[in-house]
Amino acid sequence: MAAHEPLRILPGIGIEILDQTLLPGEERVVRICTLGALCEAISALRVRGAPLLGLAAACGMAIAAETTDAGDDALREACAAIDKTRPTAVDLGDAARAALARALAAQGAQPRRELLWADAVDYLARRVAEDRALAAHGRSFIPHGSAALTHCNTGALATAGIGTALGVLTTAWDAGVLSHCYVTETRPLLQGARLTTWELARAGVPTTLLPDTAVASLLASGRVGVAVTGADRIAANGDTANKVGTYGIALAAARHGVPFVIAAPTSTVDISTASGAAIPVEFRANDEVGGFGAHRWAPDGLDAYNPAFDVTPADLITAIVTERGVARPPFAGALAALKAAPSAGR
Amino acid sequence: MAAHEPLRILPGIGIEILDQTLLPGEERVVRICTLGALCEAISALRVRGAPLLGLAAACGMAIAAETTDAGDDALREACAAIDKTRPTAVDLGDAARAALARALAAQGAQPRRELLWADAVDYLARRVAEDRALAAHGRSFIPHGSAALTHCNTGALATAGIGTALGVLTTAWDAGVLSHCYVTETRPLLQGARLTTWELARAGVPTTLLPDTAVASLLASGRVGVAVTGADRIAANGDTANKVGTYGIALAAARHGVPFVIAAPTSTVDISTASGAAIPVEFRANDEVGGFGAHRWAPDGLDAYNPAFDVTPADLITAIVTERGVARPPFAGALAALKAAPSAGR
Repeated sequence: MAAHEPLRILPGIGIEILDQTLLPGEERVVRICTLGALCEAISALRVRGAPLLGLAAACGMAIAAETTDAGDDALREACAAIDKTRPTAVDLGDAARAALARALAAQGAQPRRELLWADAVDYLARRVAEDRALAAHGRSFIPHGSAALTHCNTGALATAGIGTALGVLTTAWDAGVLSHCYVTETRPLLQGARLTTWELARAGVPTTLLPDTAVASLLASGRVGVAVTGADRIAANGDTANKVGTYGIALAAARHGVPFVIAAPTSTVDISTASGAAIPVEFRANDEVGGFGAHRWAPDGLDAYNPAFDVTPADLITAIVTERGVARPPFAGALAALKAAPSAGR
Repeated sequence: MAAHEPLRILPGIGIEILDQTLLPGEERVVRICTLGALCEAISALRVRGAPLLGLAAACGMAIAAETTDAGDDALREACAAIDKTRPTAVDLGDAARAALARALAAQGAQPRRELLWADAVDYLARRVAEDRALAAHGRSFIPHGSAALTHCNTGALATAGIGTALGVLTTAWDAGVLSHCYVTETRPLLQGARLTTWELARAGVPTTLLPDTAVASLLASGRVGVAVTGADRIAANGDTANKVGTYGIALAAARHGVPFVIAAPTSTVDISTASGAAIPVEFRANDEVGGFGAHRWAPDGLDAYNPAFDVTPADLITAIVTERGVARPPFAGALAALKAAPSAGR
């Protein structure tokens, strides 16, 4: 397994993941062959990123079929267990339910197992193709010779392809369009500082790290030509749930006339959710705040406000770039049309 | 020395400070008897907070007189050395220059030394009185029974009195007006997570810590009735330099109709600076980002964008509360009037 491959499928056996909680200090590959281990890996963010969570869910259904009688009850229970690991990323539950429906339509344990593994392999191939298509659509949003700001991690580690927002940026760098990348630390779990800087160094992109507090200062400074982030769920009206901190970036970008672009696959668009107010936001444990890992800097036992995501109102978003094309305001019609369009990756 | 006393004056000898870089893990008192040690303590943020830096500067001039011939040249050199330790807080240079002018007007080494120590003691007494007056003016901005959001540290550790923004909040808590306090971690140096939580716990105020990324989410949630921060320098038009991250709080507060209040002494108002564009902002070392202390989470050697402060435009500020009263928009006339008014603390 190449060290930067976030998830490898071992059909008939399980999966191998790169434990993202240990990066960049350690590149440890973990083999997962039970549904319990898979759910733990998702909850603990060993595997993360909305598109990659969809793939993990598809693999989880195959693992469940492999380790049970692959009957209707066992598969339904597996789907429910996967769906409840994390609430915000729509890809996770969607992929599990799609796999369940495909499996229930087949007869016999072994055919179901083979179908689910084949579907997981197909899901990964589609992710790779979709990321490339998305990056091609996104390049026009990078002003020539400009620097971009991004948040959290949306690269290969988050999708298993070249990434969403980060795929747009590395592709633009390869094309000689992007000059520099600014990356937020992304407290509390520091995905920007740990994962995105690691991926950008491998891609050779000149990178500057900033504390999350410095976002408004940076956007006011004129150093940045565009801000690009991913998404965990996009409502029908364009309101977008993404890693907490995204909303603050969008507010500062709007104030300073910097385009704010969402880059995410159409699988992230949830037409059944009318607006951001209806998106469930995951709140995580207090101890993620006031320290990192075993290193504590706040008094013990303190209460914390620790949402994993925030919701950026659609009016602050310049464009939503998907693998099927670009949605611009007003988003409702544009997103519905993209969601209904044939996939570039299929 | 009470553990929470940030600076004690030892006339004729030097000062004792609580080393704020070690809090909350260790409460270490450091005695400082040379100008070099004082400047190091300021640069390294062992002593910090705009009002407390003014006091440290006044003490530094007394230390310089004590350890030299107290001649014109020695005192001028000391003033220049203190002034260049940190560029943004106006109190620092103002206090050093005021002490220099007073000393130059006196004759003889010993009279100059005694004058400078007496002035430093007077400066501290004035700070204590000004903080109390400021807190009384600020209380009307805390809606009854509401929660407040604050940033960085503006308590006793920052002023040697009861604090500015934090003094407003603890006074409102004591009066039964404030229900709860939300505190940002304040990356990269974590003054909120380390210092403000420590002070609020001692004051008995129910406290919730949040990552800096969660500011917009929190203000959108309706949990907070007011945001109150301090200031390092307020320009004549009301543009306010304060700890980096303040501007992002102001943007989110404005979006959600939450009053955003600056609490700072009139010594922080710099009428000679026309607007925020003319305020010098200190940029600090790369290695403050991507880790904390010896604990690193980003790849080594990474470039960083690390301004210590940002500038919040006056149009986002609801009110500026000082020890002499409250300035409201348009700020220019109101600030000039407050600056010219007699001090409540004199």
